[in-house]
Amino acid sequence: MFNWYLQSGKDSDVVVSSRIRLARNISGIPFKQRASKEDLKKVKEKMKKATYNLGYGLKYFEMSNMDDITKLSLVEKHLISPDFALDNGEEKALIINEEENISIMVNEEDHLRIQVFQSGYELENLLNLAIEIDEKIQNEILYAYSKKYGFLTACPTNVGTGLRVSVMVHLPALTKTGNITKVLEAISNFGMEIRGLYGESSKAKGDMYQISNKQTLNVTEKDLIKNLKLITEKIVEQERLARKILSKDSIELEDKVYRAYGILSNCKKIDTDELIKLISDVKLGTDMGIITEMNDLKVNKIKLYSQPANLQKYLNEKLNSYKRDLKRAELIKNIIKEN
Amino acid sequence: MFNWYLQSGKDSDVVVSSRIRLARNISGIPFKQRASKEDLKKVKEKMKKATYNLGYGLKYFEMSNMDDITKLSLVEKHLISPDFALDNGEEKALIINEEENISIMVNEEDHLRIQVFQSGYELENLLNLAIEIDEKIQNEILYAYSKKYGFLTACPTNVGTGLRVSVMVHLPALTKTGNITKVLEAISNFGMEIRGLYGESSKAKGDMYQISNKQTLNVTEKDLIKNLKLITEKIVEQERLARKILSKDSIELEDKVYRAYGILSNCKKIDTDELIKLISDVKLGTDMGIITEMNDLKVNKIKLYSQPANLQKYLNEKLNSYKRDLKRAELIKNIIKEN
Repeated sequence: MFNWYLQSGKDSDVVVSSRIRLARNISGIPFKQRASKEDLKKVKEKMKKATYNLGYGLKYFEMSNMDDITKLSLVEKHLISPDFALDNGEEKALIINEEENISIMVNEEDHLRIQVFQSGYELENLLNLAIEIDEKIQNEILYAYSKKYGFLTACPTNVGTGLRVSVMVHLPALTKTGNITKVLEAISNFGMEIRGLYGESSKAKGDMYQISNKQTLNVTEKDLIKNLKLITEKIVEQERLARKILSKDSIELEDKVYRAYGILSNCKKIDTDELIKLISDVKLGTDMGIITEMNDLKVNKIKLYSQPANLQKYLNEKLNSYKRDLKRAELIKNIIKEN
Repeated sequence: MFNWYLQSGKDSDVVVSSRIRLARNISGIPFKQRASKEDLKKVKEKMKKATYNLGYGLKYFEMSNMDDITKLSLVEKHLISPDFALDNGEEKALIINEEENISIMVNEEDHLRIQVFQSGYELENLLNLAIEIDEKIQNEILYAYSKKYGFLTACPTNVGTGLRVSVMVHLPALTKTGNITKVLEAISNFGMEIRGLYGESSKAKGDMYQISNKQTLNVTEKDLIKNLKLITEKIVEQERLARKILSKDSIELEDKVYRAYGILSNCKKIDTDELIKLISDVKLGTDMGIITEMNDLKVNKIKLYSQPANLQKYLNEKLNSYKRDLKRAELIKNIIKEN
């Protein structure tokens, strides 16, 4: 079976994936900024012990034992944060399962960052899963909690529910028709945050955006999810409408999609930037039923294994940038040829 | 069997085709500029009669009976001149065979323009064929000839042998390495003329050049051919050298060739300009043995049938520019798929 990020789900013609994250801290241990090395070790030890009773196939890993390519491959999959991957010195650990749909960062900004993922649009079930895990941890560990404010976190923006819900959306048609600006503004006015997939400030590469809540205080988990659900449904509707408009000049669109496919299936070298652009076109083509040579799984595989670290991990080979461009082209061709 | 322009020949990795043209006028009939309608009719009648005894499967056609698309398709094949195709009013005829390797324009600039063609590099045999035809015509018709100057022609630049020898060469590597300028200069200093395939003044599209002699007076046919042969051999040598240099960075080249192939075999619309650029890359790839999915015949077919008039003739359908871009893409795909 394939990991969640290779699968497709509900509304996954627009919503690539859904994520829920809970920020939690352990009572009686200082927040990370003020914690001593011993404090952080204590957090790890508690979580290492807790892991045995969590279930879900979760396993505990010391980040200091993890090689750089593996770390970066997890960043590329959005399973850990870039900051969490970067500095080796600190007392960090990762609790993760084989399916990689649950990933708990220990000693990131907070003592615990509990994350759950699913492909397509699926927030309700994800919230239930996150709460279930959260409760299992609370059976063994006492959280820092205030009756007035809710869960206490290192950064004030997370105080309260400690919850961040987000969806990753693919908006090529809204981008092409130029309506994306209006949509982004509306989202922002609704108290939501939207950012390009690859870096906060960069223009959205491959027409991928992450939408998430800003607010965490004085709002219930269910309301947060309701809000994001409303926004997401609106975006899905708008993007599908924009695709209908685009498909009126279907030859333009078919040409764009098939040219991208033609280059992907024939080039001998390709860098990440071009790949992201082309696979966005091809994804639009498969999602709109324009291209029959491709499917969701192939698109997802190409997106995943084309990234620098995952490419090297997949090929089990250290490669410089030039070699990666060649091997990436080769791998893409092989994935396209798969039955 | 395929017409000569679909075949490949000697050195056809560089020399696409060879052509010999003889300019001739009939004694006792004024040159075209000064001829009356009756004079021109007389030329046609003489040539119509002569055709029966020429052999080679040659047939006589009144240009006024020919539809525009057929005329333009002949221009695209370089079998008749654009001027010859354009104005309907005049008394023009074309003597041509099924193989289209012999094409005699009647009442172009001169009374007769005898042209013979072959794919690849082949001037000696072509000259023999041209002379053979020329002699057969002389069995029935008396040419305007001066013992002092040789054959008399409408334009002084053709007086003497009335001969123009030319080769069409594909010089992508010299263009890419930037050495083309030096080569073009050298050719020009050698009394030869070089021009881009599509129009005299335009930059060479698709890296195709036509090289031909300037001089016709005070020089024998054999010397003309010897000169062009020397020049052509030099160019072939230089182009092949440039290809060797390019192939040192073979991935760059393979990538370029396969991307062009990828677009050609997948696009849903394509205009002539882009087609010419891409087919030049693919032709380089087949000639250098880089690409196995293509061969000379397919490249030649795509080059031929992609041109506006030949496309319409092939599909037997009148098409506007937009429709041609769609049908061109479809036809290219079909040719590529052929066994």
